[in-house]
Amino acid sequence: MAKAGLPVSPLAPAGFPDLPVIAGVEFASAAAGVKYQGRTDVTLIRIAAGSTVAGAFTRSSTRAACVLDNQDKLAGGGDAPDGAAIIVNSGNANAFTGARGQESVDAVTAAVADATGVPATRVFSSSTGVIGEPLPHERIVAVVGDLVAGLDQGGAADAARAIMTTDTFPKGASATVAGKGGEIRITGIAKGSGMIAPDMATMLVYLFTDAAIDAQLLQQALSSGLGTTFNAITVDSDTSTSDALICAATGRSPASPIASLETVEGTAFVQALHGVMRELAQLVVRDGEGATKFVELRVTGAQSDADAKKVAMAIANSPLVKTAIAGEDANWGRIVAAVGKSGAEADRDRLTIGFGDMVLARDGWRAPDYDEDAASAYMKNRELVISVDLGLGQGAQTVWTCDLTHGYIDINADYRS
Amino acid sequence: MAKAGLPVSPLAPAGFPDLPVIAGVEFASAAAGVKYQGRTDVTLIRIAAGSTVAGAFTRSSTRAACVLDNQDKLAGGGDAPDGAAIIVNSGNANAFTGARGQESVDAVTAAVADATGVPATRVFSSSTGVIGEPLPHERIVAVVGDLVAGLDQGGAADAARAIMTTDTFPKGASATVAGKGGEIRITGIAKGSGMIAPDMATMLVYLFTDAAIDAQLLQQALSSGLGTTFNAITVDSDTSTSDALICAATGRSPASPIASLETVEGTAFVQALHGVMRELAQLVVRDGEGATKFVELRVTGAQSDADAKKVAMAIANSPLVKTAIAGEDANWGRIVAAVGKSGAEADRDRLTIGFGDMVLARDGWRAPDYDEDAASAYMKNRELVISVDLGLGQGAQTVWTCDLTHGYIDINADYRS
Repeated sequence: MAKAGLPVSPLAPAGFPDLPVIAGVEFASAAAGVKYQGRTDVTLIRIAAGSTVAGAFTRSSTRAACVLDNQDKLAGGGDAPDGAAIIVNSGNANAFTGARGQESVDAVTAAVADATGVPATRVFSSSTGVIGEPLPHERIVAVVGDLVAGLDQGGAADAARAIMTTDTFPKGASATVAGKGGEIRITGIAKGSGMIAPDMATMLVYLFTDAAIDAQLLQQALSSGLGTTFNAITVDSDTSTSDALICAATGRSPASPIASLETVEGTAFVQALHGVMRELAQLVVRDGEGATKFVELRVTGAQSDADAKKVAMAIANSPLVKTAIAGEDANWGRIVAAVGKSGAEADRDRLTIGFGDMVLARDGWRAPDYDEDAASAYMKNRELVISVDLGLGQGAQTVWTCDLTHGYIDINADYRS
Repeated sequence: MAKAGLPVSPLAPAGFPDLPVIAGVEFASAAAGVKYQGRTDVTLIRIAAGSTVAGAFTRSSTRAACVLDNQDKLAGGGDAPDGAAIIVNSGNANAFTGARGQESVDAVTAAVADATGVPATRVFSSSTGVIGEPLPHERIVAVVGDLVAGLDQGGAADAARAIMTTDTFPKGASATVAGKGGEIRITGIAKGSGMIAPDMATMLVYLFTDAAIDAQLLQQALSSGLGTTFNAITVDSDTSTSDALICAATGRSPASPIASLETVEGTAFVQALHGVMRELAQLVVRDGEGATKFVELRVTGAQSDADAKKVAMAIANSPLVKTAIAGEDANWGRIVAAVGKSGAEADRDRLTIGFGDMVLARDGWRAPDYDEDAASAYMKNRELVISVDLGLGQGAQTVWTCDLTHGYIDINADYRS
């Protein structure tokens, strides 16, 4: 919606899901005119008193001011006895804006604190859009009153739209899990159209649950899922300066508090949370800039999980592999080359490469029953599964990526103009 | 030539240079029909008795058979008392071909040894083209007799053409340097259209000099130049399984032998050799697949040279930076993001970024005198210089790269078909 005329990704789901309400979480969106006209571009999320908060952020050494501010605020712990709030704007990333960057963060979070009664130390913020331009934070401050007045438990879908930049569809996911004495609900919204969408528009994720769980356990549940969800996707190998994930638990579920992640209920909660995270991560890939193919890449048989991840990311980020997929060419040789450059332990003569149920290469050469026509036919699918077994050990990692197409060049060769 | 209809790169030099003859080096090329029809695809190079040989090869863990064979042969030293030979074919890379790969290398190098009298242990080989297909080595063996009969000191230009795959122009460079008692000549030819051209067609380089220099010193002179030449270029971040560089010194110059690289003559030789290497490396970038811009990226002020290289390569390989350059967009924000993901020590608020003579960003923000129109006008040049100073130390590295365009997608999304 940011970029007029961008068609919805062919990999988009049929529609936005019906997200269950999370007691203690309210949303409001408004059109502040930060940059875009004629659409909502600011979202306020209020989280009830007694909640806990956890987070995960980009490891870029050129992080944006709001990311540093969120990290500072969570460094002392995630308890929110007096509630919390999150304010997000699209249109301007407030990144690489020097000392004025922090001034803008302070101005916006102070305004939210004043209007909601939430302590400023529990007001988190994200900005996404162009960089290097001062954030016109007075436009955001000007709509905070309206936002507070409009807070509504059912506003998640509107929020998912307000935070979009080059996204072609809004992203949401949810799960319900049996707690002790009642249901626990989890919902999430995300934006992102690349590890970095252009100009650091980038990935933002907000997760909410009515579970009662202390801040440390919540952080642990969140952190343990990153490696197989948001850190297991790549669109174009570029890392954002603004990536942020914030997760809040309101404790309003009738279920008993989760006292440990090792109990039946604790394990079920963690699995459901990771499921929502995986679904949102995959939605980001499905909205990858210019993407026409959704690829699941399964690497097994590595000497370690870390080696498996190196191999998986080397393949997923290889421009030659990604263009071959775009061209529906079963070019397994480019996969061999990507394995070779990954830096992981590998033995050319033990490699097995499969596309779907077909084995293309085995033990260092084309498989005896390799069928080029069948492989080419398989490549015409919108969703592909590519498997690489290194034949060396037990290390494994699955990642998700998309192809590299003319659409990516179109979007990125003239985004600012 | 490999791909019919590919126009010559707009970054190509006006023509192939006049390469001086190197006494003791002869070339012959022939059409063996390995894959291509109607063009030469095999080159034989014979190097006189009493020469020395050095080499450098890809570090990929999935190296092709001929690369492993060359490395084995040079492991014991580079003396060639009875001469040496190099045979190169295009059209088939003999990579990922299992045990048959080595059999093909053995068959071709044995045929060259028989026909030339050069010991098989001094016959080096390279193959470039499609992978996973058995090399029809009998077609190469069949033309070895003709090749030997056609050996000619003036055949370097034809050889530069015979080794092309997706290259759009042949690549050669030379230098002459004053030795003690006479001139020393250096020439080189190369092929390559990407760190990996598709299907591992990839980079091959052959350097020749009439200097008298022992094999260890020659290897040292060669190795010390790799970091600032062939290892300082990138087209698409993909690493080849077949990259090979072989350098031969015939000792036929009237100049006295180079006894040390520290003398005036030794230093001059090393500088001239590195100059030829740099020129060839830059020619590979100028023929980068789909390239329309030649970019010199100068990183300074890093904590170490290694950090500077990390930053330079992160920028040079960033799809978002490369597409911005293609779109003639002075998008310095994407450079900041690439610095952030590089893994090198960096401080957002000390970064200085320049395009040509203009400073775009200083101390973490847009420079006060930043002029968007001037920056946009600069981006219209075919050759760009981008400087990044990290403001932390003395580490520096310059690399060369090109933009990422629709042409790259065109070439790589359907190379095999």
